[in-house]
Amino acid sequence: MKTRLAILGAGRIGQVHARAIASNDSAELAAVYDPVEAAVQSVVNRFGGNPASIDEIAQDRSIDAVILCTPTDLHADQIELFAKNGKAIFCEKPIDLDAARVRACLDVVTKTNTNLMVGFNRRFDPHFMALKAAIDNGQIGTPEMGVIISRDPAAPPADYIKRSGGIFRDMMIHDIDMAVFLMGSLPESIMANGSVLTDPDIANLGDFDSASAILSWKDGRQVTISNSRRAVYGYDQRIEVHGSDGMVQAHNERPVNIEIANQTGYQTAPLHDFFMTRYVAAYANEIDAFISMITGDKPDIPTGQDGLNALVIADCAVQSAERGEAVKIPL
Amino acid sequence: MKTRLAILGAGRIGQVHARAIASNDSAELAAVYDPVEAAVQSVVNRFGGNPASIDEIAQDRSIDAVILCTPTDLHADQIELFAKNGKAIFCEKPIDLDAARVRACLDVVTKTNTNLMVGFNRRFDPHFMALKAAIDNGQIGTPEMGVIISRDPAAPPADYIKRSGGIFRDMMIHDIDMAVFLMGSLPESIMANGSVLTDPDIANLGDFDSASAILSWKDGRQVTISNSRRAVYGYDQRIEVHGSDGMVQAHNERPVNIEIANQTGYQTAPLHDFFMTRYVAAYANEIDAFISMITGDKPDIPTGQDGLNALVIADCAVQSAERGEAVKIPL
Amino acid sequence: MKTRLAILGAGRIGQVHARAIASNDSAELAAVYDPVEAAVQSVVNRFGGNPASIDEIAQDRSIDAVILCTPTDLHADQIELFAKNGKAIFCEKPIDLDAARVRACLDVVTKTNTNLMVGFNRRFDPHFMALKAAIDNGQIGTPEMGVIISRDPAAPPADYIKRSGGIFRDMMIHDIDMAVFLMGSLPESIMANGSVLTDPDIANLGDFDSASAILSWKDGRQVTISNSRRAVYGYDQRIEVHGSDGMVQAHNERPVNIEIANQTGYQTAPLHDFFMTRYVAAYANEIDAFISMITGDKPDIPTGQDGLNALVIADCAVQSAERGEAVKIPL
Amino acid sequence: MKTRLAILGAGRIGQVHARAIASNDSAELAAVYDPVEAAVQSVVNRFGGNPASIDEIAQDRSIDAVILCTPTDLHADQIELFAKNGKAIFCEKPIDLDAARVRACLDVVTKTNTNLMVGFNRRFDPHFMALKAAIDNGQIGTPEMGVIISRDPAAPPADYIKRSGGIFRDMMIHDIDMAVFLMGSLPESIMANGSVLTDPDIANLGDFDSASAILSWKDGRQVTISNSRRAVYGYDQRIEVHGSDGMVQAHNERPVNIEIANQTGYQTAPLHDFFMTRYVAAYANEIDAFISMITGDKPDIPTGQDGLNALVIADCAVQSAERGEAVKIPL
Repeated sequence: MKTRLAILGAGRIGQVHARAIASNDSAELAAVYDPVEAAVQSVVNRFGGNPASIDEIAQDRSIDAVILCTPTDLHADQIELFAKNGKAIFCEKPIDLDAARVRACLDVVTKTNTNLMVGFNRRFDPHFMALKAAIDNGQIGTPEMGVIISRDPAAPPADYIKRSGGIFRDMMIHDIDMAVFLMGSLPESIMANGSVLTDPDIANLGDFDSASAILSWKDGRQVTISNSRRAVYGYDQRIEVHGSDGMVQAHNERPVNIEIANQTGYQTAPLHDFFMTRYVAAYANEIDAFISMITGDKPDIPTGQDGLNALVIADCAVQSAERGEAVKIPL
Repeated sequence: MKTRLAILGAGRIGQVHARAIASNDSAELAAVYDPVEAAVQSVVNRFGGNPASIDEIAQDRSIDAVILCTPTDLHADQIELFAKNGKAIFCEKPIDLDAARVRACLDVVTKTNTNLMVGFNRRFDPHFMALKAAIDNGQIGTPEMGVIISRDPAAPPADYIKRSGGIFRDMMIHDIDMAVFLMGSLPESIMANGSVLTDPDIANLGDFDSASAILSWKDGRQVTISNSRRAVYGYDQRIEVHGSDGMVQAHNERPVNIEIANQTGYQTAPLHDFFMTRYVAAYANEIDAFISMITGDKPDIPTGQDGLNALVIADCAVQSAERGEAVKIPL
Repeated sequence: MKTRLAILGAGRIGQVHARAIASNDSAELAAVYDPVEAAVQSVVNRFGGNPASIDEIAQDRSIDAVILCTPTDLHADQIELFAKNGKAIFCEKPIDLDAARVRACLDVVTKTNTNLMVGFNRRFDPHFMALKAAIDNGQIGTPEMGVIISRDPAAPPADYIKRSGGIFRDMMIHDIDMAVFLMGSLPESIMANGSVLTDPDIANLGDFDSASAILSWKDGRQVTISNSRRAVYGYDQRIEVHGSDGMVQAHNERPVNIEIANQTGYQTAPLHDFFMTRYVAAYANEIDAFISMITGDKPDIPTGQDGLNALVIADCAVQSAERGEAVKIPL
Repeated sequence: MKTRLAILGAGRIGQVHARAIASNDSAELAAVYDPVEAAVQSVVNRFGGNPASIDEIAQDRSIDAVILCTPTDLHADQIELFAKNGKAIFCEKPIDLDAARVRACLDVVTKTNTNLMVGFNRRFDPHFMALKAAIDNGQIGTPEMGVIISRDPAAPPADYIKRSGGIFRDMMIHDIDMAVFLMGSLPESIMANGSVLTDPDIANLGDFDSASAILSWKDGRQVTISNSRRAVYGYDQRIEVHGSDGMVQAHNERPVNIEIANQTGYQTAPLHDFFMTRYVAAYANEIDAFISMITGDKPDIPTGQDGLNALVIADCAVQSAERGEAVKIPL
């Protein structure tokens, strides 16, 4: 018997997940919901399943799990709905931009004993997985100092920024989650700084486009993060962790491995220009992990609590940048 | 209407092609043939289609094309059969180890006006495609000198070697095809050298495990090739082309991009250990090109003549290695 | 007429500078002072000049300039002495660990119109010079975000640490100077964090061995710094600057460019294990620049004010790490 | 007592060697000869020694050794002269373009028991030395297949080419010597190919500008060489040796380690544009080895026989390219 999944939200990321389900030998796409009918039909034609309403999906006992690719402000309500209907749930991050709302939602998840996975896709990137494995295998001794550099090709549209929660909750939150994931425990405090360097309109929206942070752990470990919303050479995503016996670095993934030499020197291609091409393997791996969890395996997945942790730390980053002081993390 | 394809030979490479068909939105797997029934069933279960005999496939007018993953000594007969039955044909290389037999087969292909594509998968590798595009875009000026390094992780089993036609026809033939493909015309002569360095049993089979060659073109261009059947660090595949205005190199593809530094230095992972993991994208791309050809596009594909050319040059390499002299290529 | 220089302090770094003078066609080593006579004799034998006392050097009107490689606590007095005697002065950093003492000393330098250069050798490293030139040539547009990673192979001895002023004034000060140098202006504030991760004895001395900082400029530019006193893979010194039109990185210099591949993967050698082998070219270049300044050129050199600036910022880093808040830089 | 050396030929390379002598603590420049008096004076002013005639140098018993940077057609006679006068001799390659003349000269060297070193500078390059050490330390097991790529930035002037002996004796001879040096024994035969691709004038001079070769050893080992007289991206010098347990590569040395990323991708600088900047360390190391040999050490140096071997193999390459067949090497 194949695991049967429903997808809510048939946009860009919903389609990526639909393809992953169709390629997974032990799963099938059972149902697709989206307010835009044409979007539903396109997914169904390519990857199978039937159009369905949210309620139909919730009531259909043959459906094991749902994948929520809906707008952020619907996530918490939908998690609660499907939790009460016994579905395993994969939810794109964040659960909500308000930590209190997330906590309430997670209470429901806990009470209903629901399997909830949050879409921190980078944990499933092959390069970062190899980096994590190198740490876990003791190849760098005790991890101590981390450096995370993360730059987007270009800022998202103003409409997106308005609803995003700001650079710390929308962008740095991924790096914060990676720091927690790689260090294996929660930091004690954070110092953060934000500014606007790429586009004054972002300041008008009350947000930053450039940000730095230092996370520090009780035992003295430290991770620095550097973010920019604009990198003309592509989607720049690097992590390194330094430890007592060595260091491990994840370099950027390159679309092609050719190098051209001419009178001006040696050239390699720009980086991926979009997170969805950069993280193709990560998206497929995370859905495979979700399906594997539903069937009873115990993969190491980002939970609702992981989502909450990263949000709370991002909230502290916001406060630190406002106040110009280290903020103790209430976790 | 989707293009309907049949696969003959449900082994390792047949399965790869079946997956490519299943992932192509404009194609579907119609039929699968293999003398081993379980192999057929496994492919059908995962990728669709029905079990069928060779004759049933040949007679089924709803089937547009066949993919031949059968043993080499059956290729030429099967090509002729399906050519006469109006199918487009994808045939894994080589068409035959005997150039005369290939020529006779290609006569049938020509007379029946058949679309025949030969499986020189490397032409579809993203890195080598980018290298070819760089040349075609004039980024290195006129291409002049090529260097191709190609090493297998380990020699194939004795049984395979016996039927392989030898290192020049089985292994170097890929590099020869790439040289012709990248230089855009046929070389005039070849000097080659072979020896046994990795395993004396290979000498007992009358073959070499290490080989070098210099191809030279009438206008003075030169390509050197270096082959070994054993590389403990993985499947090593590099090409560079030097021209009047620069050079382009295709570096090896790495499974992961992490680097670990410790007291002994900096380490990166070994290369892919298998050609099928190394050329995942190439296999998918070549089937996509084949499907696109069937539907009327004119992709740049390796033809039966390309297969014959590479074989004739490989034959000349065998002679050159025997005689210790340059051999003029009769093409 | 060659420029005539005296060296005070014939230890490790004094010998490096003596060799640079001997290799400079327009300079000669005139005199050498050190309390240890054998050290003086060794330098004189290899690089020329005569033994002399401090006073003799100060009084010798044929001597144009002095190079101070003496202990830090003597620097300020000696600068004042030689300034009053009309010598050009090269002083190893820092001028003093106390900013007030530095200010007083610089007053004398100004009043006597003395040419004073401070030994921030990294500004003369060929790689960092190329990085600076790339910025100045507009190759990355407006520089905005910097990331500096700087790790020593091993912590210095306890005796050194005691007199060093601590990790911020002894080690991070180099990175602070590079940040100021590359950004081209002074930061407005700093957030810093320190901890002990490599050796508890360092905590007993009241110092840190691991430190991070975020420098921020009034216009929103930000530089993060990550320091560790222990890197088992060598002396790790990397800088990158990200700007509106691109990014420039200085990778580590490698002693040799070989790479070895075997069953465990690809290996390159560890980094330099000592700052004096890493910065061979930088030390020679800085002395050449000093000599060129004496003879009337206007090379871009680190001045006494640059030395003071870096020290004041390092002092602010100490305060920030103590108080857990951003500290405004009083410059 | 310092070793006293004389330099004959005060041109470009003579000056490089004079600097190396001046920088060697156990040697001094005693005399300089050149038909151009101003050249002699310039060297003497910068690095010491006295002007002297060839005979004066030969007769001066205080002079231990000579360094011959004179035109090639004078080398053999001068070697014989100084051998008979008991000097240790360093001679820039080649001893002569005629193997018979070299043999006669080496007879004199042998009979007079003279220490003769030939200037195959690449054996002293730090990167190639590390590559050789990796082989000798067993890091790649038994070396089996070599690939040498060697490209000059631009062809030398016509006058030089006329007297050079042609691309095989002038340029590929360096790669041949490296192949012999790295493999540790002489090859049995060579296949070579030459053509003119960069400048038709070179054909008019009866020479090639592009050449390839396969050297093969009796035990089956093979080395391929690819040469071009024109590389717009600089002086390209790479060697790799593949063995039973791995491979070692010497990558190009880069003048600076910075990388710039912008909209068109990532750029690194061109290679060195001149062999004298590329091989700075090699030139210094070879003179140090020569001086060390004079003082009784037994450094591993290229001898007169090594010079003869490379020349004889280059002669065979010329014949192979003419005849289109493998040529057995008469050594």
